[in-house]
Parts: sequence; C-alpha cells; structure tokens
Amino acid sequence: MCQLLGMNCNVPTDICFSFTGFRARGGATDVHRDGWGIAFFEGRGVRVFLDPQPSAESPVAELVRSYPIRSLNVIAHIRKATQGSVALENTHPFMRELWGHYWIFAHNGDLRGYGPALDGSFLPVGQTDSESAFCELLQKLRSGFPSGMPPRAELHAAVEDFAAQLRPLGEFNFLLSNGECLFVHRSTDLHYIVRQAPFDVAHLKDQDVAIDFSEVTTPNDRVAIIATLPLTDNETWTPLPVDRVAMFVDGRYIDEYAGG
Amino acid sequence: MCQLLGMNCNVPTDICFSFTGFRARGGATDVHRDGWGIAFFEGRGVRVFLDPQPSAESPVAELVRSYPIRSLNVIAHIRKATQGSVALENTHPFMRELWGHYWIFAHNGDLRGYGPALDGSFLPVGQTDSESAFCELLQKLRSGFPSGMPPRAELHAAVEDFAAQLRPLGEFNFLLSNGECLFVHRSTDLHYIVRQAPFDVAHLKDQDVAIDFSEVTTPNDRVAIIATLPLTDNETWTPLPVDRVAMFVDGRYIDEYAGG
Repeated sequence: MCQLLGMNCNVPTDICFSFTGFRARGGATDVHRDGWGIAFFEGRGVRVFLDPQPSAESPVAELVRSYPIRSLNVIAHIRKATQGSVALENTHPFMRELWGHYWIFAHNGDLRGYGPALDGSFLPVGQTDSESAFCELLQKLRSGFPSGMPPRAELHAAVEDFAAQLRPLGEFNFLLSNGECLFVHRSTDLHYIVRQAPFDVAHLKDQDVAIDFSEVTTPNDRVAIIATLPLTDNETWTPLPVDRVAMFVDGRYIDEYAGG
Repeated sequence: MCQLLGMNCNVPTDICFSFTGFRARGGATDVHRDGWGIAFFEGRGVRVFLDPQPSAESPVAELVRSYPIRSLNVIAHIRKATQGSVALENTHPFMRELWGHYWIFAHNGDLRGYGPALDGSFLPVGQTDSESAFCELLQKLRSGFPSGMPPRAELHAAVEDFAAQLRPLGEFNFLLSNGECLFVHRSTDLHYIVRQAPFDVAHLKDQDVAIDFSEVTTPNDRVAIIATLPLTDNETWTPLPVDRVAMFVDGRYIDEYAGG
C-alpha cells in the first residue's frame, strides 16, 4: 500500500510544511520505501519530481522540502509496492496530456484481476494497475467528450462513473487533477482539512515541526489538504466519504461549495 | 534562440560534468535566461526537471549538477524565448507517451507561420511552435505505425520525413528520444563528440572545471554528447550534417555504426 497527499488552493501556496511530515513516512516514521513522487501545477504547466528511492533519504525530496514551489494543485505519493517492481516507470504520480491539459494521477490500493481494454490512445509505460487505470480513465474521458474538456460537473460525474466501475476490483484510493480541480476517491483511508482565516498554529505528527499559518497567509487564502492519514496532531481532519469521488476547487470541498 | 544538450550512451552515465558547463550559458556565460529543463531516461521511466527561471541561478539546476543521475539518454534545453511567454508550460523538454513509451523533445529555432492540423491525439499545452511540432510528429508516428513502435530504421526514416517537411519554415534544431535512441536534427548549430577508450581529461569552456574520464569509466564505456556549441575547449567536436536527422544508439553516431 501507499500514502497519498494532495493540495488544492485558491492562491498559489507551497506545500513545504505538509511535505516535511509526509516524506518522513517514506522510510523514517513509516514503511513506504519503494519510491515517491510529487507533481505541482503552475499555470498550465506541471512539474513532476520522481525518485525510486525512499523519500526520507532522497536528495530530490530534500529539494522539494526546502524549495517553495507555489501551486494551486499538488499531488504526492509515497509507495510501498504491490504490483510492479521498484522502478522509476512504476513511481507515482503519472502524467499524461488530454485536451491540451496535463493530467496527474496517483493511486493507493490494489486492483485485482484488472486488465482494461486499451485502444492505444493512452498506454501504460510501467507495470502497475494504477497506471493502467489512469490510462483507461483518460481513454474514457476522451471518447466521452471528443470535442474537449467538458464543464466541471460533467467531468466530476464521468470520474465518479469510472471509480464506481473499478471499485469492485479492490482498493482504489486516488487523487486526480487537471490543474483546475482535484478529484479524490476514497476506498479505505483519506482525510482532509480546509485551512482558512482565522489561521492558527499547526504541528506535524511525524516530526516536531510547527508553523503559524497566520504569519504566512492573507485573510482570503483557502487551502485544502488531503492525506491518507492526518498529518498534524492538533487539528481536526475529516474523513472523506467512502466510495465517492469528492471534488476540490479553490480550496473548497465541493459539497460545501454547492451548498454554501 | 536556445541551446540544446543531449547524451546517448551504452552504459548508464551521469551528465554532471557537461551540465555544469551547459547551465552556465543560462544566464551566466550566455543569454538563455528564459527557463531550462532536462530529461533523464532510466529504464522505461523518465525524470524531467523543469524550471522557468535561469539555469545559472536555479536551485533545481544545482540539484541536477550535484546529484548524479545515471541515464542512457538525456535531453536538456536552455531557453531564450521566441514564441510563447516565459512560463513553465513553455519550458522544454516536452514529454508525451506513445506506444507505451515516453518520448522527450526539445527544440532550438523558430518555425514561422506554422499551424499544424492536429487531430486531438496529442495537443500542445503551452504556446510554443516547438510543442506543436512535437505533437504533430507524434500524431504522424502513431498514424503511420498504428500497431506499435516500428524497427529503428523505419522510425529514423519517419522522423527524417517529418523534419524535411518542417525545414522550410525556419530553424529546426531538435533532439528527440524514446529512451532507446536519440534523434538529432541540425538546421544551424549542433556538434557532437563520442568519448570512448582511451579516455582523457576534458576541460569545460564555460567554467574552469576539468575531469579525467579515465578515472570514472570502464574500457567499454561509450558516450556521445551532442550540444549546440562545443562544451569543452581541449577536445575535437564534430559538426553534425545540416538538414539531416542523425541517430545515436549505444553512444554511436549511426552512420559510423552502419559502416563499422
């Protein structure tokens, strides 16, 4: 199994604090030693840092922890291999382009007996069930919306349909983003927190590190953090609903957004 | 205009020495300040480091210079913007997946009045002529070889055809790799050197840095380095033929390979 970390915000924000705790689970405070990766959307572009070595020891992870990259949507993953060898091509998150946008996907779980019928428009490079699922999802999106990116609600429904179809095969916790919104599907463990004014001090669970967000934010900032397990020990994290695709936009959980 | 750097080897080799000189041209010894990027194939996987800030000042470039990533095929680019703003999505090299392989492309030049008919199978995310050309090339490769990656000679011929078609539009120096071979097209400036036993000392042009390759290689190593302008001042670099696509495999320039 693996662990996932996602961020969705209304202003470009760095993820250095959360990543500091998260990376420790890749070989220091937890067992996810089989590689790690993180993707940052910046405008329409995306930067993906991947390393098949444990995040707790990786020089690339040290760069990511110390170099503040500001982003509206971030997806990170630390891996404990279930399917596919420990190799760069099996390291999440995965990236493809669809409709002139980059898409990023990371998965925690195990899909048993999964062999999608892929038509060649998106093919996995590595051997994981995860990358195959990402390819099948993009294939379905492209064929379902051949003229380009649909409105967000239709996209949400299509991702929900896809998740429902694969759900019977096993654990399928995933994060997916096109740089505009962040889709989150929980099978087993996924929690979130929305930080907004009034900001307060947060303290990591995995390291004795704290930050006073009121010193590094403006009153309008809103940041959603999604993680397999809560990253801080002095804040309230909310479990996401099981077997549902949640959508985060501008730092809001979309159910709140629709209702508020 | 921009500058290109490529490496193709028969054993996984790091590019730290060449990159040290190359990155200096991104804002220190030369004017290519509008971003930089480098892609390393490792097995079937690929790592792409991108930064829209000048390579001479980039913390990511410092990581790449100091962290030896061993690769058979590397493509790097430093940018002086001609088309498209200075932004991450316009930063080379570009990556796409075709036939279950990652493909990496970087371009130095300027294609005037270029507007390819793209069918949606590969679409540019940014605004450069370069990324559009990459998308058109992959579209042609996929439609020309629908059942998968063809033998290398057929691939070479297809890339040559594509280069010939775009050549009249302007300067089209490019590097392209699928992780197995490196294609190089020269319009204006591109030079190469093949380093093999007996190895000797090389000294950079852009920094007072030297390396004795005999200390860091084995007798069977063979490394081809391709660069817009020679990177060292005590070795003989060979200009590539103009208006031709050269192929490098296992550190050999393919014309030598076919003949030898």
